[in-house]
Amino acid sequence: MGSYTNAVVRDQSGTSNGGDGGVAVDKGVDFANYFCTYAFLYHQKEMLSDRVRMDAYYNAVFKNKHHFNGKAVLDVGAGSGILAIWSAQAGARKVYAVEATSMAEHARAVVKANKLQDVVEVIEGSMEDVVLPEKVDVIISEWMGYFLLRESMFDSVICARDRWLKPTGVMYPSHASMWVAPIRSGLGDQKSNDYESSMEDWYRFTDQTKNYYGVDMSVLTKPFSQEQKKYYLQTSMWNNLHPHQVIGTAATVKEIDCLTASVSDILEIRSNFLSTVTLQNTRLCGFGGWFDVHFRGRKEDPAEKEIELTTAPSVNDGTHWGQQVFLLDPPIRVSEGDKLNASFSMNRSKENHRLMEVEFGCEIRQYSGELLPPFRNRYFIE
Amino acid sequence: MGSYTNAVVRDQSGTSNGGDGGVAVDKGVDFANYFCTYAFLYHQKEMLSDRVRMDAYYNAVFKNKHHFNGKAVLDVGAGSGILAIWSAQAGARKVYAVEATSMAEHARAVVKANKLQDVVEVIEGSMEDVVLPEKVDVIISEWMGYFLLRESMFDSVICARDRWLKPTGVMYPSHASMWVAPIRSGLGDQKSNDYESSMEDWYRFTDQTKNYYGVDMSVLTKPFSQEQKKYYLQTSMWNNLHPHQVIGTAATVKEIDCLTASVSDILEIRSNFLSTVTLQNTRLCGFGGWFDVHFRGRKEDPAEKEIELTTAPSVNDGTHWGQQVFLLDPPIRVSEGDKLNASFSMNRSKENHRLMEVEFGCEIRQYSGELLPPFRNRYFIE
Repeated sequence: MGSYTNAVVRDQSGTSNGGDGGVAVDKGVDFANYFCTYAFLYHQKEMLSDRVRMDAYYNAVFKNKHHFNGKAVLDVGAGSGILAIWSAQAGARKVYAVEATSMAEHARAVVKANKLQDVVEVIEGSMEDVVLPEKVDVIISEWMGYFLLRESMFDSVICARDRWLKPTGVMYPSHASMWVAPIRSGLGDQKSNDYESSMEDWYRFTDQTKNYYGVDMSVLTKPFSQEQKKYYLQTSMWNNLHPHQVIGTAATVKEIDCLTASVSDILEIRSNFLSTVTLQNTRLCGFGGWFDVHFRGRKEDPAEKEIELTTAPSVNDGTHWGQQVFLLDPPIRVSEGDKLNASFSMNRSKENHRLMEVEFGCEIRQYSGELLPPFRNRYFIE
Repeated sequence: MGSYTNAVVRDQSGTSNGGDGGVAVDKGVDFANYFCTYAFLYHQKEMLSDRVRMDAYYNAVFKNKHHFNGKAVLDVGAGSGILAIWSAQAGARKVYAVEATSMAEHARAVVKANKLQDVVEVIEGSMEDVVLPEKVDVIISEWMGYFLLRESMFDSVICARDRWLKPTGVMYPSHASMWVAPIRSGLGDQKSNDYESSMEDWYRFTDQTKNYYGVDMSVLTKPFSQEQKKYYLQTSMWNNLHPHQVIGTAATVKEIDCLTASVSDILEIRSNFLSTVTLQNTRLCGFGGWFDVHFRGRKEDPAEKEIELTTAPSVNDGTHWGQQVFLLDPPIRVSEGDKLNASFSMNRSKENHRLMEVEFGCEIRQYSGELLPPFRNRYFIE
């Protein structure tokens, strides 16, 4: 054996038993697959070093102190406790910082080192199990995964909101949206080559196994090619896209009001969108997906200063979320004025409710009026 | 968030709840952490492309057909089924190929493609649960992990042996041993630098967090440095050592008779060993660990041709197991004739019974007679 290693990119810890959305999830498996990562200070540091992320939350809190001053606040997934600490520094009367991993212990130390132990109470436990002594005025959380919904952490925020937010309470962030846009990229050619050479390698392998060891493995060629296609071409990729790589108008495929959204609203995302190519004679190499969140307070109790956190392609303001890239293989020649009539859907993976399966369907009407053959591709966000 | 990813080296899926050896293990967690990897054809191909591994098993079977001819064979952890197929090709009457992952389906296809479906029965299930219609004459299995015992898969072979091997039965392989030797390597300097720059980075980070965001995180400096030390310097590394990097005599720290060994024999490995430096004026940069297994049959029913599979440092016969390197930071100047009086111990990690914790203690008496200050270091095999 000796092929089992924690450092293998292909080691998809994506084998949680069941949990296709609402369904119950084995907590031990979920912890092994998911939470454990956040128990590393290295990862906390990564997130705390994301200036775009930090500035947005920092400004959201300190430019809207009226939402925090004298209030009770709940921080869902507190990690090292920074949001809870900011809430306290902004005048909160009490902050409950709920963290599922052993990072809670470090959060407690940071809170104490910043002399806020009388205000911030760190609770180690999963949000679904925690019992608070009171309802809160504000729920603050940094729950966003790649392309917003990966990790399905918003479920826990919804659970916290329904159980612990006062009827007059405010959500931080208050709104979220998912964006997609047609892109050009060299990644597709690269991944396509990787796939090809991986298959050539496979054919060498089956020949050798037959010739040296008398066993015909060629019956596995199809499943192997499927496995490799999925890995190289159907798995979305993290990428920090340059705005120039976006070749058409971006479209919103989902808008979430964090105050009212239910789990069933995010279990499945379905949307049709239009996009117009804005570049002369280029290649449609796939789609980019990203998100933004907004801190607007609540209609009856709005933010004094609205803050936006966007993970859109940017030259100077990239985030650790980057964008998710869904490749088209082979690319399609398009040009300015061509119209994409597209459909998007996203569901949770059956094997791991924190991972996603995506489908893009697209019909392209060229500026000339000619209709290109439509395509429909499935992708996996792992 | 968005720091959770299946492709992160630091993502230690090592959070199985309990299972420090004998203790029961959550099967869902164990599957998510361990078995899932072997469900990928890519990994099977990796192992099937290891010529040293393949040749050893191939020769063990076909140069000892008398052990297989007309016999009942059990293949533990069959993967793609190659050992089961060889056993059948060597004349086995019946082969039970037990595989815990969905790879069983592929194994079934390969068996059929090689027209052995009447002899080889592929059973998808964990060895601990499987019930066979008869006892077997041979148990064949490739159960070895890095440094032999990582993965703790031999437990399942022992279980299979105690339940299903005839009193006259034969184990393939029949014996195994673990080796250690003092080595020189540039890896230590590299990892030591990585650790240093990671800490410099951390200090920049805490300064920024204090100055820009008003939160003092310096209380986490010690736990962060411990986390990084563990990651860079205390975690053993896969390496394909050149024989010239071995600077002293190698020693056996464990010998296993696969026919008689019990789980309690391998839960904890303890050994004292001596090694003499064989190189003039060099650096002791740590220890290398590897293993070999032997196919000797059984005393009353020996192999006609004994086969050895070794993963020792080699110029041309490297394996996918490589060697595990345990670094010494800083290195120690040693020279020919210096005597190492060392102790070795290995236990299973409390968090994940398939991972290991190792300790090396060492006292060096120089050829001159002078005694260097002793050291004792802990390592993690992840």
